[in-house]
Amino acid sequence: MASLETALSALLAEKKYATARDILITMNGADIESVFEELPEESLPLLFRLLPKELAAEVFVEMDPEEQELLIKGFSDSELKEVVDELYADDAADLVEEMPANVVKRILKTADPDLRKTINELLKYPEDSAGSIMTTEMVTLRPAMTVAEAIKRIRRTGFDKETVYNCYITDDQRRLLGTITIRTLILAEDDDLIADLMEENVISVGTLADQETAAEMLARYDFTALPVVDQENRLVGIVTVDDAIDVLTEEATEDIERMAAILPSDKPYLRTGVLSIWSNRIPWLLLLMVSATFTSMILSSFENALAAQSALLLFIPMLMDTGGNSGSQASVTIIRALSLGDVEPRDIGEVVWKEVRVALLCGVSLGLVCFGKVMLIDRLLMHNPEVTVPVALVVCLTMAATILCAKLVGCTLPILAKLAKLDPAVCASPFITTIVDALSLLIYFAVASSLLRLV
Amino acid sequence: MASLETALSALLAEKKYATARDILITMNGADIESVFEELPEESLPLLFRLLPKELAAEVFVEMDPEEQELLIKGFSDSELKEVVDELYADDAADLVEEMPANVVKRILKTADPDLRKTINELLKYPEDSAGSIMTTEMVTLRPAMTVAEAIKRIRRTGFDKETVYNCYITDDQRRLLGTITIRTLILAEDDDLIADLMEENVISVGTLADQETAAEMLARYDFTALPVVDQENRLVGIVTVDDAIDVLTEEATEDIERMAAILPSDKPYLRTGVLSIWSNRIPWLLLLMVSATFTSMILSSFENALAAQSALLLFIPMLMDTGGNSGSQASVTIIRALSLGDVEPRDIGEVVWKEVRVALLCGVSLGLVCFGKVMLIDRLLMHNPEVTVPVALVVCLTMAATILCAKLVGCTLPILAKLAKLDPAVCASPFITTIVDALSLLIYFAVASSLLRLV
Repeated sequence: MASLETALSALLAEKKYATARDILITMNGADIESVFEELPEESLPLLFRLLPKELAAEVFVEMDPEEQELLIKGFSDSELKEVVDELYADDAADLVEEMPANVVKRILKTADPDLRKTINELLKYPEDSAGSIMTTEMVTLRPAMTVAEAIKRIRRTGFDKETVYNCYITDDQRRLLGTITIRTLILAEDDDLIADLMEENVISVGTLADQETAAEMLARYDFTALPVVDQENRLVGIVTVDDAIDVLTEEATEDIERMAAILPSDKPYLRTGVLSIWSNRIPWLLLLMVSATFTSMILSSFENALAAQSALLLFIPMLMDTGGNSGSQASVTIIRALSLGDVEPRDIGEVVWKEVRVALLCGVSLGLVCFGKVMLIDRLLMHNPEVTVPVALVVCLTMAATILCAKLVGCTLPILAKLAKLDPAVCASPFITTIVDALSLLIYFAVASSLLRLV
Repeated sequence: MASLETALSALLAEKKYATARDILITMNGADIESVFEELPEESLPLLFRLLPKELAAEVFVEMDPEEQELLIKGFSDSELKEVVDELYADDAADLVEEMPANVVKRILKTADPDLRKTINELLKYPEDSAGSIMTTEMVTLRPAMTVAEAIKRIRRTGFDKETVYNCYITDDQRRLLGTITIRTLILAEDDDLIADLMEENVISVGTLADQETAAEMLARYDFTALPVVDQENRLVGIVTVDDAIDVLTEEATEDIERMAAILPSDKPYLRTGVLSIWSNRIPWLLLLMVSATFTSMILSSFENALAAQSALLLFIPMLMDTGGNSGSQASVTIIRALSLGDVEPRDIGEVVWKEVRVALLCGVSLGLVCFGKVMLIDRLLMHNPEVTVPVALVVCLTMAATILCAKLVGCTLPILAKLAKLDPAVCASPFITTIVDALSLLIYFAVASSLLRLV
């Protein structure tokens, strides 16, 4: 790619605009945008004007809000109108949401009255709802049409539609009666009736449903588009599969962020400001820091025991970390399984029984290795005479017991969170670690007190 | 859903098969499979036989391998043939991969010779390659065809094709020349030439490319299908968007598992055996446990300091955990940004500069709160006179310095891993925690030695 940007810069410098255009029109919108990102900002308006209308709109949609704003500010009103009129309604609504007020005013002023009305309607749906990501451009047919009439209608009106592969059959109240794919239309006879061909068991989603629900339905049923209906079952739009993929990716990112104790952000990292990164990270850090008071309390109450057997101190970080890691393995596995629908809250019994067995296997194997490691590395290699066999025994028994507790806590908490209508993802690693830290210390001192007869 | 299963069971018990069938045929394959999962295994063959051929195949594809095997074992050869012949080639190949040898033999024996050949070809591609997830059923056209001829060809051959929305234009060597959508065909005149309408700048993927690459290309370009070509640019298949969604979901799960120090598994949790869960979790637990030897070494060398100022001990878990959490926030953010392409290795300078500023903000704010917490909770509330102002100062300075180091390590390690062609996801929370534990202890004792004048 690097050479392409150099070539384009050189062509611009030499004013060989026709050649630059010839190169650009062989490319896809998404790729052109990547190239533009690497070029100096001041060459963008010029390059953009070289593109044919439709391709220009494709490139525009792929740009960041900052770049879009820059371009719009340089546009004449007629240039702006050309781009906006080429946009699909859902992309235009997204654009309006991202731009500052004065730019929004210009966009709405230049847009077709129809488009303006649609944008305003789309903006009314709550953020992250199916309504907010749908497009209102789709082909609707009537049940009484023949295939030939339907194809004629698609030819007449279909040029602007984002997806013409699925057509929707409605009655005169705009209520959704059925769907038909272009595939069925093409394979049917000209005088077949739509009513006889259409699929009547329509799967649709409500405008107010979560966008994630809509995306998961598209994925589940292998649809390329999902109809969106209002509360009277009137067809108001469709969610297309490309938007569903974006939603699914976004939701996976949010889950991952929550698992790492970060509040989800909606911008790419490099474009997020330092202050907003800070404000997304600090709440959980604060909460987890303060809750570490429990570990201090436990350590404080066993201070004498530690003074009597100072070798015990050396293994505290290892025990806490191994416990934390074991617990987060279980919790992250269950969180992901819950989010994919592989595990339901009612499976809790099966989950616990499985984790108990995994924990016993992990506990026994790690406990044995741990005993060996403590005796070989910490006692022999590091020449620490305080690390005696009983101490090693205490450490490896604590290890096994901690792993059991950690896995149990790790697998049950996300399910309980889900039952309490909380997001299971917050029960991931950092949260589990804090709980398991305290547990592992309690187990450690309990085992030590009974085996070593501490003061 | 629960009532539907009860209703079906009741209908079966009363032998009202026609009614059961009437209910089932209103449903989608994925939904029927969910209902079947809840019913006793012995009723499956009966219910399955009630379904019309095409729907039966849809349901079959959604089932787990275990259920599929059970059904196939109950099938007569002609029943098996009916289902297999309805499957798309890629689904049939997936089935063959999952079944035990004797079942595979029966499937290949009953399949059409054409299908058998295709299955065998698909199985030759390496796992996780674009070739292994593609389907070989697609519509190919010639450039010299008119639109009317093309539509006639689609009508004649299109019934079996998994996606008829994209057609591919090839020469007589099967080399890919262009693509055309049904949308373009429908909107064109009958006597237009395919050569004049087709999109010649075709984006395609090689058979041996990673399936993730293919899925990301589909997502990037908003395609519903992506052509797959061999090394001579001959068209051999297409990857469809529904398979791309599955791949993207699978890859997100793998990333999440790696971040939690688990080796990726390819089965849903409830269907993974205890031993294989154990074997996916134990390697990292072992490695991380052994690497905790460093923290033991550090603690051991500062044993005297801790004995002199035993209050220092109380804050070790809090410092280690906060450091670990800060570090994993940074690493997980960068890992996800790398995997989404929001951050590239060459952005390392920008990333470090951003994280330094975030770390300073987090360090100062947490340090201040930490000082307050230590003085108020640990000193006053818990009546611990050993927690003096200098001790609190040491703790809060260590806190700030640890956060800075943790964020730096957290943001650079994933990028370095990527540069070294390793998976950045392994540098997530558990790995960072182990490093940061050691760092935080070193900082703690360095600060304590200089401020408290320890022995």
